[in-house]
Amino acid sequence: MDVIKVSAESRTSAVAGAIAGVIREHNRAEVQAIGAGAVNQAVKAVAIARTYLHEDGIDVVCLPEFTTVDIGGSERTAVRLVVEPRLPPA
Amino acid sequence: MDVIKVSAESRTSAVAGAIAGVIREHNRAEVQAIGAGAVNQAVKAVAIARTYLHEDGIDVVCLPEFTTVDIGGSERTAVRLVVEPRLPPA
Repeated sequence: MDVIKVSAESRTSAVAGAIAGVIREHNRAEVQAIGAGAVNQAVKAVAIARTYLHEDGIDVVCLPEFTTVDIGGSERTAVRLVVEPRLPPA
Repeated sequence: MDVIKVSAESRTSAVAGAIAGVIREHNRAEVQAIGAGAVNQAVKAVAIARTYLHEDGIDVVCLPEFTTVDIGGSERTAVRLVVEPRLPPA
């Protein structure tokens, strides 16, 4: 499953659509953002994706965590938002 | 229950402590942020609060949503992060 990488210039509705699509297919999505502008777009996209998925009867939650990524040979701290259904499958 | 208001200058560890304290007392916290810098600090604080609460055996999730707030007579769109236990109390 690919990580959805978000930048400060990403359109929130496009990212939200990507999140909803990955959730529908894989039941879990990971969104990654580096920097305040990117994290802001990522969180707004998750808020929009939640409304999309609610219409399908899917209640997703967001689990924010830190992760380290390699950008051109230097380590950067990224925020990762794991999005998955609130209740694990029975 | 008071809303925890976060600015771009808020210290993430202080906000994380506030979130964890409100969760322990009220089982639910609401974090509000306006603007990319504030949203970034808020999300990082939730990530830290999750680690604090994990140590207490509490698994919290984050529900991002949009809300409208009145700032000096003008309407602003804020991001609200509802933080609550993953599973509702039995």
